[in-house]
Amino acid sequence: MTHPADDDAAPPRRGGYRKGAERRTQILDEMIRMVAEQGVDASSLRSVAEALGITHAALRHYFPSRDELLLAVYREHEVREQGAPDRLKSAIGDMRDSASRNRAVPGLVQLYTTLAADAVQEGHPATRDFMRERFTRLRADLAALIEADQAAGRIRADLDPVDLASLSIAASDGLQVQWLLDPEAVDGEKVLRLLEQIVPAPPE
Amino acid sequence: MTHPADDDAAPPRRGGYRKGAERRTQILDEMIRMVAEQGVDASSLRSVAEALGITHAALRHYFPSRDELLLAVYREHEVREQGAPDRLKSAIGDMRDSASRNRAVPGLVQLYTTLAADAVQEGHPATRDFMRERFTRLRADLAALIEADQAAGRIRADLDPVDLASLSIAASDGLQVQWLLDPEAVDGEKVLRLLEQIVPAPPE
Repeated sequence: MTHPADDDAAPPRRGGYRKGAERRTQILDEMIRMVAEQGVDASSLRSVAEALGITHAALRHYFPSRDELLLAVYREHEVREQGAPDRLKSAIGDMRDSASRNRAVPGLVQLYTTLAADAVQEGHPATRDFMRERFTRLRADLAALIEADQAAGRIRADLDPVDLASLSIAASDGLQVQWLLDPEAVDGEKVLRLLEQIVPAPPE
Repeated sequence: MTHPADDDAAPPRRGGYRKGAERRTQILDEMIRMVAEQGVDASSLRSVAEALGITHAALRHYFPSRDELLLAVYREHEVREQGAPDRLKSAIGDMRDSASRNRAVPGLVQLYTTLAADAVQEGHPATRDFMRERFTRLRADLAALIEADQAAGRIRADLDPVDLASLSIAASDGLQVQWLLDPEAVDGEKVLRLLEQIVPAPPE
């Protein structure tokens, strides 16, 4: 499908860097809004060009493939989340806060699940690298918080901090899927509170 | 792409029920082997017809859509797993045994992750129903085992058995993705042993 040419939406010409960057941000804004409202599927990818009144060729100029567009949307969402209050104050509590914010935007949970599924398949090298690095960074960040909790006597010192970090991230990811499929049956925040509760403190 | 007509591979004619069922099983055998070896991607779906020497039309006769083929492969895998030893003997230990068996077949972990991602998107109603029912059943089965452990004094009685079941399933699912992306960094079995270890027994 093609659209009538639209000068404003055409790829930036020589010297149009700022305009190009603005247009790229505008596309990501629109995508985040659409993904949050309607989830990720082929039709929303197609309709983002329509919603912005740009051609598919123009959209492809900024994001040459579906993988690159989805990754850019998720990265932009993460950057905006970093500014959220309560970021990384405590290990499992932080996963819980993040899960709680994600409840408001099921589309972004769908996007995350799509990225995870693409990452473990062949044929999505950029998505695989992104998710692999994301897990590596997240495990290291949470493990550092867990070590601080252990040093402060809040978590038993003999537990492996990286394993506990992997467990918290895995629980949070897995619960999002169960919650999306059956929000009446699964309260992800409540289950993550259970995990926080059973992580043992040192003996008195 | 088409293949020369092959009588043996044609859809079953009137009275060919048994032959049809055999051919269906043969297709599933081949798919399980291919998915276990090469993972799920578009090319393996296309190549299963080639590998069996049947036409795409014949394959579509048995499995009218990609979703139906993927679901049938996963269901068949589950049925075969049911016969595995140590099935559902203890709550979290069972998830651990299953994770350990899945390590041998990363392609089936990819298949599971694909089904989960499809299930949370629009446009895959059969996959959504299957995964939703699978989680409902799994939570109930594990919760019953946890209640038995609570009655026997092995797990503290004030913990919600369904929440603990959700947590174990979520951890197992999430760890499979982390492990697939980074097998050197994440040992899913070891992390599930950590979860088993921190689930508290009643006070003496």
